[in-house]
Amino acid sequence: MTEFIIKPIDITSGKNEVILNEDDATKMGFKNGDRLKIRQSEVSTVGMVETTKTVVNEGEIGIYKDILEKFAFELRAGVEVTAVGRPDSFYFIKEKMKSEKLSKDKIYSIVADAVAGNLSNLELAAFILAEEFVGLDMEEIGHLTKAMAETGQMIDFEETVFDKHSIGGVPGNKVTLLIVPIVASAGLLIPKTSSRAITSPAGTADTFEVLADVKFNIDELKELAKKVRGTIAWGGSLNLAPSDDIFIHRVEHGLGIDPLPQMMASIYSKKLATGVDFLVLDIPTLTRYYERGAKVRSVEEARTLARQFVELSDRIGIKTEAAITYGGQPVGHAIGPALEAREALQALEGLRPSASLIEKSCALAGVLIEMSGKATKGQGKQLAEEILNSGKALSKMKEIIEAQGGNPTIESQDVAIGNYKAELRSSSDGYIVRVDNKQIVKICNTAGTPRDKGAGILLHAKVGYKVKAGDLLLSIFSNSESRLSKAHAIALKNNPIVCEGMLIERISDLT
Amino acid sequence: MTEFIIKPIDITSGKNEVILNEDDATKMGFKNGDRLKIRQSEVSTVGMVETTKTVVNEGEIGIYKDILEKFAFELRAGVEVTAVGRPDSFYFIKEKMKSEKLSKDKIYSIVADAVAGNLSNLELAAFILAEEFVGLDMEEIGHLTKAMAETGQMIDFEETVFDKHSIGGVPGNKVTLLIVPIVASAGLLIPKTSSRAITSPAGTADTFEVLADVKFNIDELKELAKKVRGTIAWGGSLNLAPSDDIFIHRVEHGLGIDPLPQMMASIYSKKLATGVDFLVLDIPTLTRYYERGAKVRSVEEARTLARQFVELSDRIGIKTEAAITYGGQPVGHAIGPALEAREALQALEGLRPSASLIEKSCALAGVLIEMSGKATKGQGKQLAEEILNSGKALSKMKEIIEAQGGNPTIESQDVAIGNYKAELRSSSDGYIVRVDNKQIVKICNTAGTPRDKGAGILLHAKVGYKVKAGDLLLSIFSNSESRLSKAHAIALKNNPIVCEGMLIERISDLT
Repeated sequence: MTEFIIKPIDITSGKNEVILNEDDATKMGFKNGDRLKIRQSEVSTVGMVETTKTVVNEGEIGIYKDILEKFAFELRAGVEVTAVGRPDSFYFIKEKMKSEKLSKDKIYSIVADAVAGNLSNLELAAFILAEEFVGLDMEEIGHLTKAMAETGQMIDFEETVFDKHSIGGVPGNKVTLLIVPIVASAGLLIPKTSSRAITSPAGTADTFEVLADVKFNIDELKELAKKVRGTIAWGGSLNLAPSDDIFIHRVEHGLGIDPLPQMMASIYSKKLATGVDFLVLDIPTLTRYYERGAKVRSVEEARTLARQFVELSDRIGIKTEAAITYGGQPVGHAIGPALEAREALQALEGLRPSASLIEKSCALAGVLIEMSGKATKGQGKQLAEEILNSGKALSKMKEIIEAQGGNPTIESQDVAIGNYKAELRSSSDGYIVRVDNKQIVKICNTAGTPRDKGAGILLHAKVGYKVKAGDLLLSIFSNSESRLSKAHAIALKNNPIVCEGMLIERISDLT
Repeated sequence: MTEFIIKPIDITSGKNEVILNEDDATKMGFKNGDRLKIRQSEVSTVGMVETTKTVVNEGEIGIYKDILEKFAFELRAGVEVTAVGRPDSFYFIKEKMKSEKLSKDKIYSIVADAVAGNLSNLELAAFILAEEFVGLDMEEIGHLTKAMAETGQMIDFEETVFDKHSIGGVPGNKVTLLIVPIVASAGLLIPKTSSRAITSPAGTADTFEVLADVKFNIDELKELAKKVRGTIAWGGSLNLAPSDDIFIHRVEHGLGIDPLPQMMASIYSKKLATGVDFLVLDIPTLTRYYERGAKVRSVEEARTLARQFVELSDRIGIKTEAAITYGGQPVGHAIGPALEAREALQALEGLRPSASLIEKSCALAGVLIEMSGKATKGQGKQLAEEILNSGKALSKMKEIIEAQGGNPTIESQDVAIGNYKAELRSSSDGYIVRVDNKQIVKICNTAGTPRDKGAGILLHAKVGYKVKAGDLLLSIFSNSESRLSKAHAIALKNNPIVCEGMLIERISDLT
């Protein structure tokens, strides 16, 4: 054990590394990659050694900004530094790599060490890849889910909690903005926490932020829920299942993978942490081989997945009903935070901007209403539609907007969308056979979503629409003229909307 | 594409990350972890984005020291920075993760991108773990081996090359210091390149460095080989199979794994790179369940492994003979660079410090001599012993020492060992039943090996020896009194040498 002075290193590194002066490292026999425990009274974490001649002096230990933000070390003060071996949890990960079944205690130990920063990114990757290659059985997934929940904040709303979750992947899926006010209007408690977009044009939190604040602490969230019965808040500031973020940002993004056990535990750990009792699980599903952009590629796959989710759910004491929904093209006509917020308001205002949006929202809300017993089996959707049509859902939405610090008098026409607009028109007569989710996402993100809230796409044609040459297919919006022109170029080149009868191929000897 | 100025960051990070100012990152839409290509005329590599407010200014890009050491960028000069997607090789890694067989081109692409710094540590880990979980077939291992060799320097010695390789794990294995002079004395060319210790007390390069220089470039190595027919050089400075180092240091150490396909490719890529034609492969093997510290745990496992090595070897055009050797206790009596160099010299001088050392060295040298046709089958070992006993091997060793810049008049008694010595004595009468490789390594490393060349252990008793209470079991050496006392404490506590008849357990109510 040696005492060092913390030197803050202003780099967001995404890793738990610490920096020693080369002379100190040599003197103490530490090599690059060795593991040190850093302790300052009650605060401690673990870092792998990097070395420098000049960035930190002898007697100092450099700690990166993101680690300092996570752990409450006193800066430029002394810390005890001790060489430590790998944590036990590493050897449990190795057991899983050898296809051994992990006990509850071992799974909890892995998750706790992930949260405490005791496992390197490589070691975390070994766990995630073992899930991918070896798998976890349902008992293990149950332990993982509970461990991920219990190593973070747990919220007790002190009554029955309803919730909706979409597996994601399909653009334009703003159904939460209809479901929450409908379900809350039915008298149920639905304190929804949502995520921001990572690779998609708009997460629910990004979209609702156009209308109100979404960042609350747990006490505020509980008060909101008590007052208006429904919330649409950002989950990111609540420290719910914090290991989830660690696994996602340190491993899953970097490898473009999301093993099923981890995906299940990720979703349900947050449901456990928010005390959910009844959940409707939206599984957007592709139905044709050429469709792209939803996680689930066929109805058979969706059914298998649904059964697994329901089994996990039963095991951890949540009642889930899974709903397989069509994910082959965007939901509704609007994609992008402001455009989606506007479309949701239009639907609540009774303007019926999209049949599919209303259909899907009422169906999912109806499932929750049936689960609550407030409607009999088969009657939930109708009750949801009545609530929507009566204007009760709009009133409830305004209550929620006001409670979350937004302007309750806002109307759909007031929502500001991007200043610049470009259009894509059909080059031929025919029927729309495909709206390509992946291209839609690419165009939106190029136009500036999710950061530019006004950016996005309005679809004027969807699958099955009849169009004539010159008809408007979609409009692209952005607050940046240069981003808009890049997005427009992609739209012109990549056929995001495919019309049967369009020219398929041109071959000539002019190149 | 944007032009940035390189700012060298004096941290050895072990990763290909680059640092942007937060304002630049925001302006250009880069997030942490995004992949950038950095190009300066012919020099280019790829780095993942880290961000800072202050460490690099707007318009600068911070590049870590170890990356700058690897790629010949001009410092504080402009580089083109372009956002790039994942390389194709990443998708080939994903194919392997899905159990698909990889073509030659795909394997070459993965290895080339590893060397070029185009793959992140996580992506490299995905490949190594896919080897662990999914495996590679022999054709794939062949391609991997060749790709690893051909992406580095290839040495052509312009005649038939003989070599010896030990799979490692067993301490005290200084047989190379006998085999090289014996085989060279027999008229064969054996330009051996060896590694330094990573976790063991002494690599062959560390040991021979006690007697001569081991660091040469390729031209020097070729000249040495021409002159004295045998070398004992450090392979680390020759850029042989550079991807091996990358896989080992960026993934395998961090996870404590060495998947068989990677281990085979690692060994044979270096043999290909040094133009080896005939190889004797030493496979130290445990034979009893309680033995530790060799990679191979049973003779059956060794046989399976040997067959696989021979199959790979045939495929890539190297003739291998595998020798399964006893690895349950250290080879000879000395462990640690100087102690091992001394013991090897003693053996060459005819002092017979250890029967097992001479037996093993002559057996392995004999295999090579038989492969060359200079002895008939079954006569090689005898010829090796004759060469050793005649003093020819000692003369050859002195030639090699002189050619490699050492003192050719050195005798075993001149080799300096650690100034401080501690002893472990038997507490009872009985027979030695076990010398624990793992404890021996731990005690040596605590005493200072491999950095402190004089540190190490001299065994006075090995398995089967009869000892009396009070007899000397081992001596520990170090040039540091404090390290010696720590090492001694471990020796006293951990029973590195187990004598049957020793007290097994003491139970009392005094705690």
